Amino acid sequence: MTQNKQALTFDIKRKIPNTLARSGTISTPHGDIQTPAYIGAATAATMKTLTNAEIDALGAQSILSNTYHLMLRPGADLMEKAGGIHKFMNYNKPMYTDSGGFQVYSLGMAYKKGLDATSHTTKGSSENAVMSADQLTKVDKEGVWFKSHLNGDKIFMTPEYSMELQHQIAADVHMAFDELTSPLSGREQIKSALDTTHAWAERSLRRHVALNAVHAEKGENQQALFGVVQGAREEDFRYESAGFLGGLTLETGEQFDGFGIGGTFQPEELPDVLTWINETLPEGKPRHLLGMGAQPADLFLGVEFGCDTFDCVAPTRQGRNGAIFTYDGRINITNKRFEDDFTPIDSECDCYTCLTHTKAYIRHLFKANEVTGMVLASIHNERFVVKTVEDIRQKLNESDAAFWAYKRDFLVRYYGQERAKDFLYTSPADWQ
Amino acid sequence: MTQNKQALTFDIKRKIPNTLARSGTISTPHGDIQTPAYIGAATAATMKTLTNAEIDALGAQSILSNTYHLMLRPGADLMEKAGGIHKFMNYNKPMYTDSGGFQVYSLGMAYKKGLDATSHTTKGSSENAVMSADQLTKVDKEGVWFKSHLNGDKIFMTPEYSMELQHQIAADVHMAFDELTSPLSGREQIKSALDTTHAWAERSLRRHVALNAVHAEKGENQQALFGVVQGAREEDFRYESAGFLGGLTLETGEQFDGFGIGGTFQPEELPDVLTWINETLPEGKPRHLLGMGAQPADLFLGVEFGCDTFDCVAPTRQGRNGAIFTYDGRINITNKRFEDDFTPIDSECDCYTCLTHTKAYIRHLFKANEVTGMVLASIHNERFVVKTVEDIRQKLNESDAAFWAYKRDFLVRYYGQERAKDFLYTSPADWQ
Repeated sequence: MTQNKQALTFDIKRKIPNTLARSGTISTPHGDIQTPAYIGAATAATMKTLTNAEIDALGAQSILSNTYHLMLRPGADLMEKAGGIHKFMNYNKPMYTDSGGFQVYSLGMAYKKGLDATSHTTKGSSENAVMSADQLTKVDKEGVWFKSHLNGDKIFMTPEYSMELQHQIAADVHMAFDELTSPLSGREQIKSALDTTHAWAERSLRRHVALNAVHAEKGENQQALFGVVQGAREEDFRYESAGFLGGLTLETGEQFDGFGIGGTFQPEELPDVLTWINETLPEGKPRHLLGMGAQPADLFLGVEFGCDTFDCVAPTRQGRNGAIFTYDGRINITNKRFEDDFTPIDSECDCYTCLTHTKAYIRHLFKANEVTGMVLASIHNERFVVKTVEDIRQKLNESDAAFWAYKRDFLVRYYGQERAKDFLYTSPADWQ
Repeated sequence: MTQNKQALTFDIKRKIPNTLARSGTISTPHGDIQTPAYIGAATAATMKTLTNAEIDALGAQSILSNTYHLMLRPGADLMEKAGGIHKFMNYNKPMYTDSGGFQVYSLGMAYKKGLDATSHTTKGSSENAVMSADQLTKVDKEGVWFKSHLNGDKIFMTPEYSMELQHQIAADVHMAFDELTSPLSGREQIKSALDTTHAWAERSLRRHVALNAVHAEKGENQQALFGVVQGAREEDFRYESAGFLGGLTLETGEQFDGFGIGGTFQPEELPDVLTWINETLPEGKPRHLLGMGAQPADLFLGVEFGCDTFDCVAPTRQGRNGAIFTYDGRINITNKRFEDDFTPIDSECDCYTCLTHTKAYIRHLFKANEVTGMVLASIHNERFVVKTVEDIRQKLNESDAAFWAYKRDFLVRYYGQERAKDFLYTSPADWQ
């Protein structure tokens, strides 16, 4: 694994004592990511509604695409023929792909059940959190049968196949193939999925190492693989999962390059769950909190409890629906009160949208169903989360006090004093 | 009208002998337009899918919005409260508005009839080209009743009201309120609508002058007004209309600042119709060909026969549907043959899309219903027409021979030798 360009290194720069928070640098063949960092969600090899120039301008250091979606469209063979995802979309910074594991859940147990597959709440009835006839996936120990949500084609996804697809897509960082559970699942279901996840993690790593050996022979870049920690809200399972994946070593010495953390839920749950995981994982490897960042509390708690990177589709999705972040809380731009508001969405924001346009104009675009409104809202929301994590990083590098003060000021202003208290219980003594 | 910033001046730079073609400069309070020029269509105060930065980057010198659409949403009062359309959308170059007259037709006689209201063909049956019960407009000599296509509200639009709305919106160049006819209308209908259009032109000018006097008192910019020539395919009516509007002078001396040309159809018809009009209109004032530019022949013939500016929704609309201009003709990007085509849409194009992305990537975005695909296609199509008119202008300024050679080479390459001949009959002797 050392003949050519290394897959990934991680250097820790600064830590905050008595917490799991740290800053650092992830290095990949396509450049560095200063952490903590927000990774933009680019499901189908595009950050929805934005051009590459706009992605760069909003300060994104890296983006994450979805293996399942790219496998169906345009297909992993085409991605390989293009020379990999970087060349396919002409994006030259570090890229991540997920494994397809999330879709095992969202198209499986959660499919058309009213279970909330994306925001990690417990919406829906626990009686529905079981397998059913019309779901689009079927899991066995070997792998997962998918029925394409596009054309009904049957696909058998295994850990090995997920790795082959991800190596064809050729992002810098891959995720091991895992089995998620529902927020409503019982311990027995969770344990069974966890055992499957661990067996698949080892198979993923083994296939990944073999594929990297092929890259080495061809003089191509090495690619990195993260194991994905599962175990839902169960303390013992999270310890077990982090311990297993953190220690997993092939006979030839290879280990995971970092870790994804899956199946996390509400921001209030992050401190406990992330403590169990991140005090167990090896300290020197990066940790990516999968699908979290729908609201600012996720980011502050994620950093405080030891995560280095984040991704979430929510900021652009909410933006497309007119739900827009401001430092004083989230607003809906279509609200009548913004009709003649000729001020920016947020006067402190440095994004193109806020430097160029008023709420009245953006509201008009939404009311008139103009795509430009979705573009401008996506630019703003994405810049808002990228900038928030940038600011967290800067404060973290400055001093412990700067980090705590920034966290307090931001969350109190965003959520109000009462609600913010839910996220501030770990703050220092000067907090009341 | 001379106390403050003049509404509009037009200086002719160069003419091609034995044609009506000329280049020049239109000056407005928001800057100059080098003509011939393509004016981007920005119906609802946005060029669909694009940001202002993208509009600037594609080289647009000016954009045109639609009074009827803005009147309904966000409303002319709000536009005035914002300080006019330039401030509302933060666009600082010259702007045009149409009068609402086109919607008299498209929501009236043409409404839900299968008549082609936008591409000026004769699609549909002439038996349908009559008033009907469910159309959304009703014309009388005083004005037009509109039933809002959004909420059914009834609006009575008169020439005076159109001018009041346009002055509230406050673009640099307005159009007089007119009555269009269908491509299928008979001479009697056309003559009746023409008489109405001329009566309304005078009422428009009168109200416009009064509103400019109010601007003068307030120290605000003067705004310009173009009379709109109608008369369909009828030679005598076109002479009559151009003569009437070109000579129209109020007792106090005011005239139109320029002219719009409405109700033109296929490119093959442009030479005759434009000759009738443009050899009649006063030479020293700019002429805007309304709604033409769906294909390159429109632009070449429009310039050759005396038009200075053009606007058309077709390039962005076609782009959003995946129909994309190249110098070798129009392609549909969703075609299977582009699946693994890793070359730009057009290797000679200098737009962001062509400098950044391949056909395979753009096709993928369209197949995956990603908005970014529509953005990239709109950037390209709009740049293609803007650039084509830029190149026509450059050649026209260079020499007669350069203009003719450019026209011939472009059209033969785009349409093929046979079809191009339809557009080349006025070329010089060296053309065969």
